[in-house]
Amino acid sequence: MKLEKFPKDSFVISTEMVLPNDTNPLHNLMGGRLLHLMDVVAAISAQKHSNRVVVTASVDNVSFKYSPKLGDTVTLEAKVTRAFNSSMEVFIRVWSENIPNGTKVETNTAFFTFVAVDQTGRPIIVPKIVPETDSEKKLYEGALQRREVRLMMAGRMKPKDAKSLHQMMKDGMSNEE
Amino acid sequence: MKLEKFPKDSFVISTEMVLPNDTNPLHNLMGGRLLHLMDVVAAISAQKHSNRVVVTASVDNVSFKYSPKLGDTVTLEAKVTRAFNSSMEVFIRVWSENIPNGTKVETNTAFFTFVAVDQTGRPIIVPKIVPETDSEKKLYEGALQRREVRLMMAGRMKPKDAKSLHQMMKDGMSNEE
Amino acid sequence: MKLEKFPKDSFVISTEMVLPNDTNPLHNLMGGRLLHLMDVVAAISAQKHSNRVVVTASVDNVSFKYSPKLGDTVTLEAKVTRAFNSSMEVFIRVWSENIPNGTKVETNTAFFTFVAVDQTGRPIIVPKIVPETDSEKKLYEGALQRREVRLMMAGRMKPKDAKSLHQMMKDGMSNEE
Amino acid sequence: MKLEKFPKDSFVISTEMVLPNDTNPLHNLMGGRLLHLMDVVAAISAQKHSNRVVVTASVDNVSFKYSPKLGDTVTLEAKVTRAFNSSMEVFIRVWSENIPNGTKVETNTAFFTFVAVDQTGRPIIVPKIVPETDSEKKLYEGALQRREVRLMMAGRMKPKDAKSLHQMMKDGMSNEE
Amino acid sequence: MKLEKFPKDSFVISTEMVLPNDTNPLHNLMGGRLLHLMDVVAAISAQKHSNRVVVTASVDNVSFKYSPKLGDTVTLEAKVTRAFNSSMEVFIRVWSENIPNGTKVETNTAFFTFVAVDQTGRPIIVPKIVPETDSEKKLYEGALQRREVRLMMAGRMKPKDAKSLHQMMKDGMSNEE
Amino acid sequence: MKLEKFPKDSFVISTEMVLPNDTNPLHNLMGGRLLHLMDVVAAISAQKHSNRVVVTASVDNVSFKYSPKLGDTVTLEAKVTRAFNSSMEVFIRVWSENIPNGTKVETNTAFFTFVAVDQTGRPIIVPKIVPETDSEKKLYEGALQRREVRLMMAGRMKPKDAKSLHQMMKDGMSNEE
Repeated sequence: MKLEKFPKDSFVISTEMVLPNDTNPLHNLMGGRLLHLMDVVAAISAQKHSNRVVVTASVDNVSFKYSPKLGDTVTLEAKVTRAFNSSMEVFIRVWSENIPNGTKVETNTAFFTFVAVDQTGRPIIVPKIVPETDSEKKLYEGALQRREVRLMMAGRMKPKDAKSLHQMMKDGMSNEE
Repeated sequence: MKLEKFPKDSFVISTEMVLPNDTNPLHNLMGGRLLHLMDVVAAISAQKHSNRVVVTASVDNVSFKYSPKLGDTVTLEAKVTRAFNSSMEVFIRVWSENIPNGTKVETNTAFFTFVAVDQTGRPIIVPKIVPETDSEKKLYEGALQRREVRLMMAGRMKPKDAKSLHQMMKDGMSNEE
Repeated sequence: MKLEKFPKDSFVISTEMVLPNDTNPLHNLMGGRLLHLMDVVAAISAQKHSNRVVVTASVDNVSFKYSPKLGDTVTLEAKVTRAFNSSMEVFIRVWSENIPNGTKVETNTAFFTFVAVDQTGRPIIVPKIVPETDSEKKLYEGALQRREVRLMMAGRMKPKDAKSLHQMMKDGMSNEE
Repeated sequence: MKLEKFPKDSFVISTEMVLPNDTNPLHNLMGGRLLHLMDVVAAISAQKHSNRVVVTASVDNVSFKYSPKLGDTVTLEAKVTRAFNSSMEVFIRVWSENIPNGTKVETNTAFFTFVAVDQTGRPIIVPKIVPETDSEKKLYEGALQRREVRLMMAGRMKPKDAKSLHQMMKDGMSNEE
Repeated sequence: MKLEKFPKDSFVISTEMVLPNDTNPLHNLMGGRLLHLMDVVAAISAQKHSNRVVVTASVDNVSFKYSPKLGDTVTLEAKVTRAFNSSMEVFIRVWSENIPNGTKVETNTAFFTFVAVDQTGRPIIVPKIVPETDSEKKLYEGALQRREVRLMMAGRMKPKDAKSLHQMMKDGMSNEE
Repeated sequence: MKLEKFPKDSFVISTEMVLPNDTNPLHNLMGGRLLHLMDVVAAISAQKHSNRVVVTASVDNVSFKYSPKLGDTVTLEAKVTRAFNSSMEVFIRVWSENIPNGTKVETNTAFFTFVAVDQTGRPIIVPKIVPETDSEKKLYEGALQRREVRLMMAGRMKPKDAKSLHQMMKDGMSNEE
């Protein structure tokens, strides 16, 4: 197993068409259906990073800005932002296009976390991430704060131990004052 | 329209069986399929609170503790924890049972946010929530922090304005020291 | 294993939204899709009574009064009415709501019969039912007639042996004359 | 519109393969899935008889004798047995085959009732049935008793008015005594 | 195993209704969904000829003339035209009907090829076809040319070895000159 | 509208995971399901070339070399090879990977043809293709022969008019002799 991998090694892209099957009574893509599509593409990304079977551990920061319509094309891009022992945070970006109309908008972004497991279902160590581009470095840095927020909001980390979050809130205040 | 409603007014319960259709290659319930089920039950809950058509706005703090197996029964309970103008935070709790074996475990909890819209698709004010039980009061209080985290992590609120989160982190530190 | 159980021990409730996926060309919930939903919720109810794997044995007295529309919420409630050796009759009641419009109607009721099976697939004895409420007692009494009708219509019971049905028809005549 | 039609005019046959999608956790065809398949084939049969859009009105006397397995071929045959004003009773017969093994068994029979509707959704008169074969004549005769049982069990016909059923039970007794 | 079988021995018919689930954003049956239906009915036909498990090997000459609409009835008929060692060519004919309107059109024809496999997944010899009717004889003759085209277009047969195709093109030219 | 476009302008890539829902009784990806996936990705490609709504016209030369297994990742790549008035031939290439095992194979290639239609459903002229790479030029040249074969096999072109095919067969013979 490699000890380190690049985000681009786990890059996955998928393109879907919004069919009647996928819509809510307003003829827009169901939020729940889009969550399902993101889960599949993010799981493939985590598999590519770890070369392991993976299970979804958590979902956070999914914020829908736009509802794709029936007949629209939806493109999902995923890559691993950072690994922590056996867990991997995957960043997913979703676009929606109406190709005949020539319109294209960002639908949402999201962070899914997966755990790599061995044949017996136990967590197993995965390679570390070495970010390359500026955007990858920013996602890599932010992953620590998102992880602290995740654990703190789930009651699994005490607020005082969320050091990176403390720093972020302190910096945020001084930066802007 | 009522100006205030209780969480129990939006209480929804749904019971499903994990069929082959819903599983991943490990024969466990797909994370994405469970997200879909949660989206539907939470949308019904938000409809009951607002008596409006609703659209999924965001998903947060979904943390899977246990993977339901093929043939298990999954029970989802949802109710609105707090309303902010046109948006509603819905708390979802999911249990998984193997009835023949007599085992029952909590699968996960999650927070979905929905926006109520009128016939033209524009956001519209919904009733406020009046929490009754201790657990409802705690969820009501926490909703403010979760909202700040949500907006801050999405880059839509400056860290210095996340007042409730600041308080939480300060309290957390003093409480434990 | 308990020798006796109450109908409430097998009470199951499920709430669904009618999605495009579930409709016929008139944009109403397909009869066949509703039968599928009833089968799942009734099977869970029979599992709860017997703590066994169950298989659908028969379906009767399903009479659709109202067709839920696209976007409606459908609520299904099921509980065991009576057990006969290894078979259980489950009563299912279905409501349909248009929550934004504030309308709610009973869609239909139905009786499904399940058989509890052991690991080898053979029928196995289940607990008896002790009805508590008036409505449960009425369903319990009627189960005998429905069973006779079921067996007689399937050619597995001679008309002369349908004693409870004979009584019902005799009573019905005298009651009304 | 023709005033009379033969059962063979509404004969429909459909052949399906049991895919993982259709099975329960025991890898058998779900009862609910089979009900859905029967509803579709029976609706096509009622359409052929009435040349109208039809809606499912009731389901009765479905008795599963055998559970088709994953990979089996399921054949459904449907034809209208009798028409009453705007309603049609459809008889469905289902076989299950494991073609490589050369085994073939009858899975179940069932009676579905449909109502023909016009463009505004109102019930509309359909042609009468003229049975031809012995089996069609028997189904035609039995339709009256099944209809009385259906209405009586649904509380929409008084036992004393179920004349055909009374006759059947009387005949049954005398025949066998 | 029989050494020879007739095309009628593998005749399969299936009737489906176009549900919202099956349509594209224009409310017509998706081409991909129809391909799926053809694959299932053709696989059953190949199973009936070979009494073996079969896998799809190739798809050719599918030409859609008409798009069935939402609510239409689609009828698929399949039978084996010719067998080559372990492979079987299946001819599929698809009709589309709007029963209430009384319209019926041929949607398309297609040729699917299947390979029969034994328990270990290896190709296994199947019975030869003895065509009976004129139409079956024509399909049987044409199968050779279609096979050569298939192999030549896939780069698995040299043009010079496509003897039957050469003859067809030569005949075609002389016939018409 | 542009008069000419490059194949890369219509390049589409999609990545899917084989779920139980997609498999046949052998736990391999159903041929019919893969045809459906190819139809969707190819339709998006044809939309990108034409900026129009498109309908599937024909399917040819699909030859399955390998059956993806449950849990495998399937990658589909599509681009337009050549346009003829209102029709476009799309080349699709499919790979299958078992990521944890590190294996990757080509599953199949295929040619789907789509027709661009205007709002009234009538065929409408699309841009021509200007191939750039060697592989694109080869696909562009071959498109003419494949079209002739398609039309000839469908009985819509006389063998003597299939000039490009004649040339191919003549060249093939001389090349190899």
